[in-house]
Amino acid sequence: MSEDVAIVGVGMIKFGRYPEKRVEELGAEAVVLALKDAGVEMKDIQALYSGNLYQTSMSGQRILQQIGQTGIPVVNVANACATGSTAFREAYLAIKSGLYDIVMAVGTEQMGKQGLLGAPSDPATSPEGVLGTGLMPGVFGMAGMEHMRKYGTTWEQFAKVAVKNHFHSTMNPLAQYQKETPLEDVLNSRMIAYPNTLLMCCPTGDGAAAAILCSAKKARELTSKPVWVVASALTSDPWTQRDLTFPDINTLTREAARQAYEQAGLGPKDLDLVELHDCFATAELLHYENLGLCGEGEAGRMIDEKKTYLGGEIPVNVSGGLLSKGHPLGATGVANICEITWHLRGEAGRRQVEGAKVGLAHVIGLGSACTIHILQR
Amino acid sequence: MSEDVAIVGVGMIKFGRYPEKRVEELGAEAVVLALKDAGVEMKDIQALYSGNLYQTSMSGQRILQQIGQTGIPVVNVANACATGSTAFREAYLAIKSGLYDIVMAVGTEQMGKQGLLGAPSDPATSPEGVLGTGLMPGVFGMAGMEHMRKYGTTWEQFAKVAVKNHFHSTMNPLAQYQKETPLEDVLNSRMIAYPNTLLMCCPTGDGAAAAILCSAKKARELTSKPVWVVASALTSDPWTQRDLTFPDINTLTREAARQAYEQAGLGPKDLDLVELHDCFATAELLHYENLGLCGEGEAGRMIDEKKTYLGGEIPVNVSGGLLSKGHPLGATGVANICEITWHLRGEAGRRQVEGAKVGLAHVIGLGSACTIHILQR
Repeated sequence: MSEDVAIVGVGMIKFGRYPEKRVEELGAEAVVLALKDAGVEMKDIQALYSGNLYQTSMSGQRILQQIGQTGIPVVNVANACATGSTAFREAYLAIKSGLYDIVMAVGTEQMGKQGLLGAPSDPATSPEGVLGTGLMPGVFGMAGMEHMRKYGTTWEQFAKVAVKNHFHSTMNPLAQYQKETPLEDVLNSRMIAYPNTLLMCCPTGDGAAAAILCSAKKARELTSKPVWVVASALTSDPWTQRDLTFPDINTLTREAARQAYEQAGLGPKDLDLVELHDCFATAELLHYENLGLCGEGEAGRMIDEKKTYLGGEIPVNVSGGLLSKGHPLGATGVANICEITWHLRGEAGRRQVEGAKVGLAHVIGLGSACTIHILQR
Repeated sequence: MSEDVAIVGVGMIKFGRYPEKRVEELGAEAVVLALKDAGVEMKDIQALYSGNLYQTSMSGQRILQQIGQTGIPVVNVANACATGSTAFREAYLAIKSGLYDIVMAVGTEQMGKQGLLGAPSDPATSPEGVLGTGLMPGVFGMAGMEHMRKYGTTWEQFAKVAVKNHFHSTMNPLAQYQKETPLEDVLNSRMIAYPNTLLMCCPTGDGAAAAILCSAKKARELTSKPVWVVASALTSDPWTQRDLTFPDINTLTREAARQAYEQAGLGPKDLDLVELHDCFATAELLHYENLGLCGEGEAGRMIDEKKTYLGGEIPVNVSGGLLSKGHPLGATGVANICEITWHLRGEAGRRQVEGAKVGLAHVIGLGSACTIHILQR
């Protein structure tokens, strides 16, 4: 029987723009917050898993150079938007393996003004047979339109996701933006790729988040409020008869959800909150269905009925989500873990989901990787 | 008690230059060779760990797009020159964790003409207080000169490492170069950074290598010749009162060796062969001492007495080493594992170390990461 795994410390910096700092300085700040939260020091940490997508392939070592080089194993991982959550998952496996009692995962990114629209220097798809668009606003615009066509979902319903998440972010002092955006403002903001307007797209930004994971024995020594990792799933795209004009953004989340619910012995009805990958407003509604929070085609009604608001049936993205908390790529997956952890401990302040016992954190990266972690107190 | 881990299949392509191919095509070729060697198919593999340093952060998924997208977890790792061996180590941890029975590690790199002399776009060290050189030929030249100063090691002794490894490579059809280089040629080739001449520096090149790892139970189903991973160590630089002009290239290997020997319950005298990180000829002699193959200051005499030749007391780099087999960064760490595996199975052809039972694979990357794996049949 492999080890149970607990989270005993988390920390993140306010997402935003820090042009005067280096990415490893941001990472170091998050690490120090997590250490303080766990009541341990860097010398206690036995291995470090670090996720960063665009600045450096040696992000973990650079962070240790800032705050304490202890000679421990450092593994740098990348997995598109799921980079941070993959670092978290590898840290989880390290505890599961029985080789370590206490390890850390950290995720960082400093996107500055780079945006996500530029083509990478080496294109991710083969030069052969490229049709349609690989640009994220295009992909998630098309995915929304497909949902409209199949189920009659409306532009306003997608826009309401942005209204909700921006509203939630007003209660999160670590969110990049903390400003309400009424429906009219969302609909009237600049169109990026129909149906997503500017306020329905996540911003670029800088950020860092860290989490400390332990074996059960070690966790009980350190805290009276451990948060247990009861499921960890990672999927990539299965082969499909590929529609070259329209990437599939649903299948890998559905498969990860199936695996995660099975591992945890829990279902969507058991969840008290969800942090899901709302890189665009359209994505959030699709993932309600992909995660089984509602039936097929029911996502539009779910947002109309405010079921995913704080205080609703199943609050989604009470942190503000990627749309308003921000989405510094490598940091996002670990930040989701921080958010769920705070709720399960009852430490989420004004946005606390009362009595939360089980939460789900979901991240997808196209190209492709999807992680789902289910945490339980 | 965590799972024992075995290697049941390995494969690598000939290292060289493949300007007409994409890096994922090279990776796919190595993967197919490893699958064939293990007698399994892609659908049998439960997780993929992929190492690539410079071409793409999504190397694993791109390989699966070539040969079979099965929806499995894919983790992309980077750790400087230890990128491939870190992918292998994470695959090892995945089996140790008990979550998987059979996983794959793959390492790839396509260096083309890029060389290692160019500064990265974002410098790896802080802009503050940079002195000396961070260029690899400079660092390893200085390290050699320090050894000369302390122990009287000679230029010729360092050059003999290149003579040996180029000689060994004439027996390895997968080596990038397979040509003997007599001592006179080595000494008379173009000086790069004293004491290393051109023939004492590893070439740039393209390559790919893959290995399939299993739980003990699964390994026994698949093969009568499993190769056991009896130690896996990964270290980063511990904090030292830093000499800003002279990076320490010894400490992290020494610490990794200590850990690996302890894990395996073996010592240097138990080894039948070693594949170590001879990125420059100077490095090889230093690592004889760092790995405990000889006493302090005795490395020069060791090469004079040909103790590390095939047929000698402890053959080192019978594959040709980085100096002649080549060093496509992400591929190197997995290729070392392939080489040791072939020897332990008695399948290394003309360069076979007769009766080999235990082998050690060592890789270091500055910045920093050092892996040591000890394999046993």
